[in-house]
Amino acid sequence: MIYLDNAATTYPKPKAVYDNVMKAMKEYGANPGRGSHAMAIEGAKTIYETRELLAEMFNLEDPLNVIFTFNATDSLNIAIKGLLKPGDHVITTSMEHNSVLRPIYELQKLGVENTIVSCDKEGKVNVEDIEEAIKDNTKLVVTTHVSNLSGTIFPIKEIGSLCKKYDLLYLVDASQSAGVLEIDVQEYNIDLLAMPGHKGLLGPQGTGVLLINTDADINHLKEGGTGSESSNLSQPNFYPDKLEAGTHNLPGIAGLNFGIKYIKSKGIKSIYNHEKKLLDIFIKELKKNPKIVIYGPTNILERSGVVPINIINMDSSEVSYLLDTKYSIAVRSGLHCAPLAHKTLGTEKIGAVRFSVGPFNTKKDIIAAVKALNEISLAE
Amino acid sequence: MIYLDNAATTYPKPKAVYDNVMKAMKEYGANPGRGSHAMAIEGAKTIYETRELLAEMFNLEDPLNVIFTFNATDSLNIAIKGLLKPGDHVITTSMEHNSVLRPIYELQKLGVENTIVSCDKEGKVNVEDIEEAIKDNTKLVVTTHVSNLSGTIFPIKEIGSLCKKYDLLYLVDASQSAGVLEIDVQEYNIDLLAMPGHKGLLGPQGTGVLLINTDADINHLKEGGTGSESSNLSQPNFYPDKLEAGTHNLPGIAGLNFGIKYIKSKGIKSIYNHEKKLLDIFIKELKKNPKIVIYGPTNILERSGVVPINIINMDSSEVSYLLDTKYSIAVRSGLHCAPLAHKTLGTEKIGAVRFSVGPFNTKKDIIAAVKALNEISLAE
Repeated sequence: MIYLDNAATTYPKPKAVYDNVMKAMKEYGANPGRGSHAMAIEGAKTIYETRELLAEMFNLEDPLNVIFTFNATDSLNIAIKGLLKPGDHVITTSMEHNSVLRPIYELQKLGVENTIVSCDKEGKVNVEDIEEAIKDNTKLVVTTHVSNLSGTIFPIKEIGSLCKKYDLLYLVDASQSAGVLEIDVQEYNIDLLAMPGHKGLLGPQGTGVLLINTDADINHLKEGGTGSESSNLSQPNFYPDKLEAGTHNLPGIAGLNFGIKYIKSKGIKSIYNHEKKLLDIFIKELKKNPKIVIYGPTNILERSGVVPINIINMDSSEVSYLLDTKYSIAVRSGLHCAPLAHKTLGTEKIGAVRFSVGPFNTKKDIIAAVKALNEISLAE
Repeated sequence: MIYLDNAATTYPKPKAVYDNVMKAMKEYGANPGRGSHAMAIEGAKTIYETRELLAEMFNLEDPLNVIFTFNATDSLNIAIKGLLKPGDHVITTSMEHNSVLRPIYELQKLGVENTIVSCDKEGKVNVEDIEEAIKDNTKLVVTTHVSNLSGTIFPIKEIGSLCKKYDLLYLVDASQSAGVLEIDVQEYNIDLLAMPGHKGLLGPQGTGVLLINTDADINHLKEGGTGSESSNLSQPNFYPDKLEAGTHNLPGIAGLNFGIKYIKSKGIKSIYNHEKKLLDIFIKELKKNPKIVIYGPTNILERSGVVPINIINMDSSEVSYLLDTKYSIAVRSGLHCAPLAHKTLGTEKIGAVRFSVGPFNTKKDIIAAVKALNEISLAE
């Protein structure tokens, strides 16, 4: 199997990730923060060290402002619903994933206004369009860093500056970029950074992260046991406990810990360069085939990780079916949980076949994918 | 290390649980439901089979009404907040965990009324007290099945009948009972059953379950990608997608799958009998020591899994510290995230040392714990 579905979850993970999921389960599989015995303390240490690694990677000051969640969707729900109240206005874009659009759409029913800024056919946002959308009651701007559909890189540093200028909060969905592109929450004026642990950060599924780089009040979406202030019927009012109720995914976090260490050891830039080189070859080769339509930015520097394509006159799910069954190549077809992004690219009816690379893909994988696509397009 | 902290999380897990977490990560570590390639389908199959196993274990009709969550706290928040609206009244008890009390307390601020029925000094609830608390606007009754502090078994079948009689919804927190005590949602008239995957069900941390045995409308707490109805800006309105947003903890669920299979192969009753036998010895032995106070029901048939104790004139955290450092016995001291339960038992100021057994504990573990407690109490 050639795995080119890394935008859904990276596969494989570094060996140390597997080993440490197992080590956490077998050697200190207690409930961290819920006991004071040696095993529980070992678990709590692992979790705290992972907070430190994440704070370091994204230049967040306080590791206690690193919140562990279930997945990026959980992180985004906590951030969006924790911040916005009826009467507030939020700005987002047409390239967002349903994990941003659906919570905002839900809040609309409760009286939270929103503006969805349209992007161009390459999935690019015009920062001036965001500026124009700002109103007196605008509280928050939410954008992706890299589109999960088109791979378009958003100018988060510019948008961060804009938000600072207008005193708005900025939430970035780093689902497709964390671990691949540099992000400095302080330099980029990012107030909240949401991400999965199981994509670019190379951790296991069942892990999500929310970094909080603001003093703004974020209400908790869930309440429960925190192992702290047990006699208080209210959720504790300090991070991370305020936003972390219930038992952690300790094996997941232990794996994530070593995913981040792997990235540190390789260097984010070298991972990015490796993936860019592969995409570059992929796009250059596919351009030679007139039956293949490539979506997203034509400039390779404006995209990362993801390439959606279609073969003219073929259904995207048929292409992905053939890739899977005939060539053993795993990709994703369909609408990728980003309906407005498909409208933006003009693919809302036909969907697209998405190829997404990870750090363990090779040039050989890419050449095989190109060869398969050429064969499939010829057969049509 | 002798692990007697199974009420926090069971340890160890059956070998097949470890093996299948690893298999899921290494062999089909894709994103289930987010792709149609072979690996994603293998993941989706594992998840569906686990829904079937859970539906079978608790006699739930439709496996699609098995919702996978982050942990029991997540399940309880989804159920409680999804059901209750301002003006509704909810009845719960003083023996509940903070994962029930804190969400209810939060809803109180939004105009949801509540009654917290007091239990007796053994942690037992009087069903007539629940009946007396019913008002015209009562919508929901929430009780634990087994107290995480005292081990008291609640008469959930009787409470279920009461709820049926008054047409109330009944939510049971099975955090300490799922996998150890028989639960039949149809026979017991349970509308919603919440549980962790990592306690009695012997799965990994990062897994929770909510079973839905009612047609009552449950609003979603979170929205996001579901891999279904991608072009719809609203969360899909069918189970399980309605209440499952974002990427699943596939390795966790794959492990849980084999935790449940382990329980099936042993039989719930044999696991219960094994744990009961151990508790019986433990309590009988401790009763011989006049310096030891045992909390919870004196009748062994009225308790399960958990025994909280104190040594007279000793701090509970000192006792657990000595057990850990001198005897390598892992237990939990303190307030156990159940403040009103401690008030009920009269331990709100001193806390308690909680011993909790799992299927892999042996008589030898129990004898070692008794010996250690006797020595510690003599040293005082």
